[in-house]
Amino acid sequence: MASIDVRQPLLSGRTDLNPQTRSKDTPKRKRFRRSKSAPLADFVPFEKTSIGSDPQSNAIFGNIHPNICKVFMFLAFYLSAATVCFYIVRNQITGKKTNGVLDAVYFCIVTMTTVGYGDLVPSSDAAKVLACAFVFTGMALVCLILSNAADYLVEKQEILLVRALHLRKKVAYTEILKEAAMNRTRYKCILAFVILLVLMITGTIFLSTVEKLDLVDAFYCVCSTITTLGYGDKSFSTKGGRVFAVFWILISTICLAQFFLYIAELNTENRQRELVEWVLTRKVTNLDLEAADLDHDGNVEAAEFVLYKLKEMGKITQDDISLIMEEFDDLDVDQSGSLSASDIILAQSSETDQK
Amino acid sequence: MASIDVRQPLLSGRTDLNPQTRSKDTPKRKRFRRSKSAPLADFVPFEKTSIGSDPQSNAIFGNIHPNICKVFMFLAFYLSAATVCFYIVRNQITGKKTNGVLDAVYFCIVTMTTVGYGDLVPSSDAAKVLACAFVFTGMALVCLILSNAADYLVEKQEILLVRALHLRKKVAYTEILKEAAMNRTRYKCILAFVILLVLMITGTIFLSTVEKLDLVDAFYCVCSTITTLGYGDKSFSTKGGRVFAVFWILISTICLAQFFLYIAELNTENRQRELVEWVLTRKVTNLDLEAADLDHDGNVEAAEFVLYKLKEMGKITQDDISLIMEEFDDLDVDQSGSLSASDIILAQSSETDQK
Repeated sequence: MASIDVRQPLLSGRTDLNPQTRSKDTPKRKRFRRSKSAPLADFVPFEKTSIGSDPQSNAIFGNIHPNICKVFMFLAFYLSAATVCFYIVRNQITGKKTNGVLDAVYFCIVTMTTVGYGDLVPSSDAAKVLACAFVFTGMALVCLILSNAADYLVEKQEILLVRALHLRKKVAYTEILKEAAMNRTRYKCILAFVILLVLMITGTIFLSTVEKLDLVDAFYCVCSTITTLGYGDKSFSTKGGRVFAVFWILISTICLAQFFLYIAELNTENRQRELVEWVLTRKVTNLDLEAADLDHDGNVEAAEFVLYKLKEMGKITQDDISLIMEEFDDLDVDQSGSLSASDIILAQSSETDQK
Repeated sequence: MASIDVRQPLLSGRTDLNPQTRSKDTPKRKRFRRSKSAPLADFVPFEKTSIGSDPQSNAIFGNIHPNICKVFMFLAFYLSAATVCFYIVRNQITGKKTNGVLDAVYFCIVTMTTVGYGDLVPSSDAAKVLACAFVFTGMALVCLILSNAADYLVEKQEILLVRALHLRKKVAYTEILKEAAMNRTRYKCILAFVILLVLMITGTIFLSTVEKLDLVDAFYCVCSTITTLGYGDKSFSTKGGRVFAVFWILISTICLAQFFLYIAELNTENRQRELVEWVLTRKVTNLDLEAADLDHDGNVEAAEFVLYKLKEMGKITQDDISLIMEEFDDLDVDQSGSLSASDIILAQSSETDQK
C-alpha cells in the first residue's frame, strides 16, 4: 500500500479534542486514517456521461450544484410561449386592460404563480382551456424553481453571511464549517425572512405611491399576492404597476414558499438532531455490542460501531447494508471475511473466465 | 456472549441467492449475524418522554407515524376560530352572500387554501387585517397537513394496493417488502393521481348540475380551484354549492399539492437510485480498498466496505462518521481499536470515578 506520509487523518480536526487520551504514549492505539476520501457531493459518475443525450442530465446532485441556466431557460421558454398565446387570444380576455403585450405577460405571471386576481379573466372556451393548461405547467415550473434556483442563491449568500459573522473570532476553519453545517438551515430561514420582509415593504410602498392605495389596502394587497390568495379587489391596474408586478409577484411568491420550505427543513433537522444526540449520549450496553458485532468475532471494530449507530439514528437502513453486502460477498472470493488486493485480482480473473 | 442459537442471520432472505458460493463446504466463510437489530424507524427515545411538556412532541419520526389527531385538532381549532372571527365581521365582507355561518366557513376555506375567488372580499380595514392573519396561518396549517395526514392515509392505502397486486404471485415476503420499498413512491404518485382525477370529475359534475355551469366552465372552475388560482369569475354561489365547496376545496387543493410533492420525491429517488446502482456496479480498485481501510490493517472488513460505499452513495457524510467516532474513542478505554465487554465496564467505572 501507499506510504503513510501522504495519508490524512480520517477525522481531521479531532486530534486536539482530548489531548490527554490522545498523547503519543499510547502505542496500542491505532490511528484511523484514509489516503483518499470517498467521492462525496461533488462527484459525478463519468461513465454515464455518454449515455444521457442531454449533458445536463448527469447532475445527479442537482440540489447541491443546481443548474440555474436550465431553470431560467425553462422560465424564459414558458413566459414567451404563454405571452404569445395570451396575446393571440387577447380579445377573449376581459377586464382592466393597459397594453396588449404587457397584459399578456402580467396575466401569465398572475396565472403561473396561482395568484389569480381575476382583474383579467378568460371569457372564451379556448382562452379558459389555455389558462388551465398554463396554470398546471406554471405550477410545475414554480416547483422546479423552488427546488433549484432560490436554494442555490440563498446558499451562496449564506456562506458569505457565515464568513462575515465569524471573521473576528479566531476559531479553526473546520470549526467554522462544522458550525455552519449545524446552523445552515437557520441562516437560510433568517435570510429568506429578511428578503421577504424587504419585498413586502417594497411592494407596500410601491402600491401606495404608484397605485394610490392607502397603507392598509397596500399591505392587504401585498399579503393577498405573496400568499397567492389574490382576491382581486385590489390589484395592479396601471401600466407602471403591471411592469413592477411581473417581477415582484414572481420573486415574492417564490420567496414565501421557499421560506416555508426552510421552516419545514429546520423542523425536520431539529428532530433528527435530537435523535442523533440521544443515540450518541445513551449508555452503550453489552447487548448493543453484541448487536453491533457484524462479523461475530467478539469484538466491535470502529466501522461496525459506526454502522450500528447510523442505523439507530435512522440515517441508513438494513436494506442499504444488505445491498452493499451482496457486492462484498461477490468480491470476497476467498471468503475470508475481509477484502485484500488478492481478492480484487481473483474477482476480476473469475469475471474474465465467465466471459 | 449469548448463545448462537438465538441469533438471526444479518441478511435474512439472502442465504439462498447464490447457493453454490454459500454451501456448507466453505468453512473459512464467516456468517454475518446479529442477535438484535438496532432499533429502526419505530423507535422512540423513552428517556425524553418526561422532558417535553407536550406528550406528542416525542414523535420524532412524525412523518412515518404521524399524529393525525394533532393535525385534525389544529384544523378544527383554526376553522372554528376563523369562522367565529369572520362571522363577527360578516357585515364588513361584501359579495354574493347566502347564509351567515356558511359564508364565514366558505370564506375561511377559500382564504386558507389561497384559492381567493374574490366573490367574498373584506371591505373594512379590520376584516382585511384579519384575512391577512388567517391566510398566513392557514398556509402553515396546509403545509402541516401536507407533511402528515395525506401521506399517512396514502401510505396505508398503498400497502393494501401492493398486497393486492402481489397476492397471486408466490414470492417471498421479504421480496414483496423490497419491491414495495422500491416502488412505494410510484404507487403513491399513481394513487394521488387517481384520487385527484376522481375529485376533479366530482367537482365538474357538481358544478355543472348544481351551479348550472356548462361543461367547459365547470372544468375551468375546477382547474382554477385545485391549483388555488381562483380568478373568481366562476365560483360557488349557491347554498348547496358552498357546503360542497367547503369540503371539496380543502381536499382537492391538498391532493394536488401532495401529488406534486410525490412527483418531486419520485424524481429525487430515481436520481438517488441511479447513483446507488453506479456505486454498486463500478469496478472496485486497489485505491478503493486503500481508502476504505479505516483502521489501516491492510484488510477491508465488511463493515468498513459498507461504510465506504455508503459515503460514496452520499447517504452519509464524514461528519456523521466523525461524531460517532468520538463516542467510539471515548468508549474504547484500552485503545485496542475495538470494543469489548471489558471496555464497557472500564468506561462506566471511569465515569463513576469522575463523579
